[in-house]
This record gives sequence, structure tokens and C-alpha cells, in this order.
Amino acid sequence: MKIVFLGSGNVATHLSIALQTIGEEIRQVWSPNLKNAETLASKLKAQPINEYNQIILDADLYIIAVKDDAIANVASYLKAVSGLVVHISGATTIDALESNNRIGVLYPLQTFSKTKEVSFKNIPLCIEAKSASDLSILQDLANRLSEKVYLLNGEQREVLHVAAVFACNFTNHMYSLANQILTKSNLDFDIIRPLIAETADKVQENLPENVQTGPAVRNDVNTMDKHLKWLKTMPQLVEIYQTLSNSIINNNK
Amino acid sequence: MKIVFLGSGNVATHLSIALQTIGEEIRQVWSPNLKNAETLASKLKAQPINEYNQIILDADLYIIAVKDDAIANVASYLKAVSGLVVHISGATTIDALESNNRIGVLYPLQTFSKTKEVSFKNIPLCIEAKSASDLSILQDLANRLSEKVYLLNGEQREVLHVAAVFACNFTNHMYSLANQILTKSNLDFDIIRPLIAETADKVQENLPENVQTGPAVRNDVNTMDKHLKWLKTMPQLVEIYQTLSNSIINNNK
Repeated sequence: MKIVFLGSGNVATHLSIALQTIGEEIRQVWSPNLKNAETLASKLKAQPINEYNQIILDADLYIIAVKDDAIANVASYLKAVSGLVVHISGATTIDALESNNRIGVLYPLQTFSKTKEVSFKNIPLCIEAKSASDLSILQDLANRLSEKVYLLNGEQREVLHVAAVFACNFTNHMYSLANQILTKSNLDFDIIRPLIAETADKVQENLPENVQTGPAVRNDVNTMDKHLKWLKTMPQLVEIYQTLSNSIINNNK
Repeated sequence: MKIVFLGSGNVATHLSIALQTIGEEIRQVWSPNLKNAETLASKLKAQPINEYNQIILDADLYIIAVKDDAIANVASYLKAVSGLVVHISGATTIDALESNNRIGVLYPLQTFSKTKEVSFKNIPLCIEAKSASDLSILQDLANRLSEKVYLLNGEQREVLHVAAVFACNFTNHMYSLANQILTKSNLDFDIIRPLIAETADKVQENLPENVQTGPAVRNDVNTMDKHLKWLKTMPQLVEIYQTLSNSIINNNK
């Protein structure tokens, strides 16, 4: 397939490289910032562009990988293309795209960083398309990228996005708060890294509600009181400690 | 070393087997419940006992691996022994042990489940002892069990225990809440497991504050409003969503 990428951020970078690796041809990388387009395009031997009127009209697939609130605007410049137009956002419905285009969604459920390689084989790809034939095109493509392909509608994708905030964004914040506590006592974050790895590893085979540990699930009031006393110099953490402990206690009633 | 275990729970099981694997001799397993003592002792070819007066007096090391609030009571029955007496609790000071004994602490910072094997090589062991010579005995032993041995006093161990609640217990609860959200929409927890694994993997090389992602850190009010609207049928989760999002926003000010 001939593919045009619109956007050059983290997800665009990882996804375009993965697509090239499985033999697809990335023809152009568009970005409002030409330097950014060039950086990604050079890795793909694609043409970097920063004007909408430079976009080729005969690509098979246009992948819009820009910020959620910019998707509709970028899509509005693709009215003349005949290829399939998709966005890659978890939080955006398919309707953000132009209803006269062939449209779809290809949402990779993963957290991407600039520096860290991730293998697409293990990344859940959530796909949706307006027509059955386009869904089948996306499905073929997704199956070659990943072993985990899910057909989800916009509503399910939104739910998944909310769940991901808890499982990824809030979880990472828990790590940050742990680091704040350690730093305050001159302890290095390194001491807690194996615990973080094992906590995530445990739920790869189990459901989290079956492996909950700690003072809250035991309703061990003495230990919780001791912890709250120690935290009293960090008032923001006291509120979080109480809210989450109560939530664990309520879940076990 | 000749070792007596007092307690037969998760940590006692994993630790005693690890000690036997490196060539130490577990002589007895004491538990108030003889059946439990027998279950563990049979794995170690040790003697199962459930009376304090059956405890041998000439072991080199007595490891108290019972619930935090039972440590002092168990220790009070070991006044006559000449070996080193340690507990393995993160939240308990060394003073819970008898001041006339040779005493110490050996705290493995990890979450243990009955069914899942863990390698001690990668588990941080936090040690403390009243005398320098006993500290050196514990240090030698810990170094043979693990590559990560830390000398911490009781105060540092308490801090670490608070941090572990955030990094492990609260993190696992985030996974549970994500699962509640998914279940409500008939989505399987499996879809989010790769994201959980990658989120933990990312902070093995990075500090969490440098890899925070999601709507809160971008101050993306639209997305947060959408999520809160979706969550309104789960009021407990609304409070948690707001508290944690505010905390992320405050951290980035």
C-alpha cells in the first residue's frame, strides 16, 4: 500500500516505522512544521511536506496522527482523496473524519516514548471502519502488524481510553508519588523498581482484584495510621492515601 | 547455618525455599497451626512444630515471619536462644524484638503470591542489626540471596513501606478500577495487559515524572470532561479520577 502520514509525533514515528518494516511504502510525511516532517521522512525515505496542496491524491491510506483536537481540521483537507482516511485516536469518534471519504480508525493501545523501542506484535490494535470492505482492509493490515487486533466501535474505544488512564497514566503517577516519598528520605528510586515490575507482571496471569495486597485490603488500621502520620508533611499525598485506601476497603466489602 | 522459621505464610515459604536453595539448613518450621507448619516443613525436610517449647535453642538464625502485630509476642518466647533473631517486616521497628537477644531485620521488598515463583536474585533485601557483627552475618547471607542488598534503619524502612503502598498496592488498585470500567462494557482485561506491562517497563530505565502521559499532564480539559461524563455512573471513580488528575496537574505546575 502507498501510505501518507499526517503528523510526525511519537505514535506517527513508531507506527510508520512498523508499517515500513512489514513492507508498506510510506510516500509522504506531512507536518505543519517542515523540520519535524523531515526528521521522520528521512527515516522512511518518504517525501517531507508541510502544505496541504502537496499531498498526493492517489495513496491507498492516509493516516492522521495529530493531536485529537486537530484531527477534524486536517481531515477537512483530504476531501479530494480516494484512499482510506483513518485517525489513530482512542478518544475521538470516527465522525471527526469527513463523511464523504472512506473512513476508519486504527487505535494502538500503548504508551509510546520517543526513546524506547516497542514491538508492535504485542500491541492491541483497535480498528473500526464505515464500510465492511474498508474494515477488512484495515483488519488485514492490523493482523500483519500485531497479534492482538480488536474490532471496537467508538463507544467501546472511549471506554478503553478511560480504562487506560487508570491502568497507565494514574499508575505512572503512583510511581511518581512513590519517588517523591523516597526522595524526601534520600532513598533512590532504584530500590523500588523490582517491586513495580513484579506488580505489573502478577496481573499478566491474574486478575488484579485477586492479587491485591497491602494494609487497606487487610483493613490493617494500625499500619494505615502510621503511614498517614508519616505522610502528614505531604498533605496532597494524605488525601490520595485516604481516597485510595477507602476505595480498596469498599471494593472488598 | 541452622535456621528456624516462625511462620508459614507467603513470605516465609518463598524465603525459606530460597535459603535452602543456597545451601542453608532449615531445621524447624513453627506455626500456631500444625497443618500449616507441616505443609511448609515438608518442602524443606524440616521439623514441623506448633509449641514454643519445642523450638531448638541452638539454631544460628531465627526468622520471625508472622503478621506485624504478632511479632513481639512470638519474639517473647525466644528469650532463651543464643542465635540471631530477625523479623522480615517493612513496617515494624527492630524494637519489637527482645532487647536481650541478638536481633536484626531482613526485609524483602517484594509482593509475594502463593502461586507465582519469584527469583530472589532481583529482590531488594533491606537489612538492619543491633550489633556490627550480626549486621555482617546478615549482609553475607543477603548477598548470597540477592544482588540488591540495602542497609536501612527502621525509619528508612518505614518510608520505603509507605512508598511501596503507592508503587504496588495502589498501582494494583488502579488495575482493578480499569478492569471494573472494562467489565462494565463487556471488554476483557486482556486488552489492557500489554499497556500495563509497558507502563512498568518504561520506568525501569526512566524516572516516572519524565514519562508521564495522558490528558492530565497535557491539561487536556476536553478529554478529562468526556471521561468524567462517562464515569458519572461510577461515583467512586469520579472522585478518584479528579483527585489524581489534580495531583498530576499540580505536579507539573
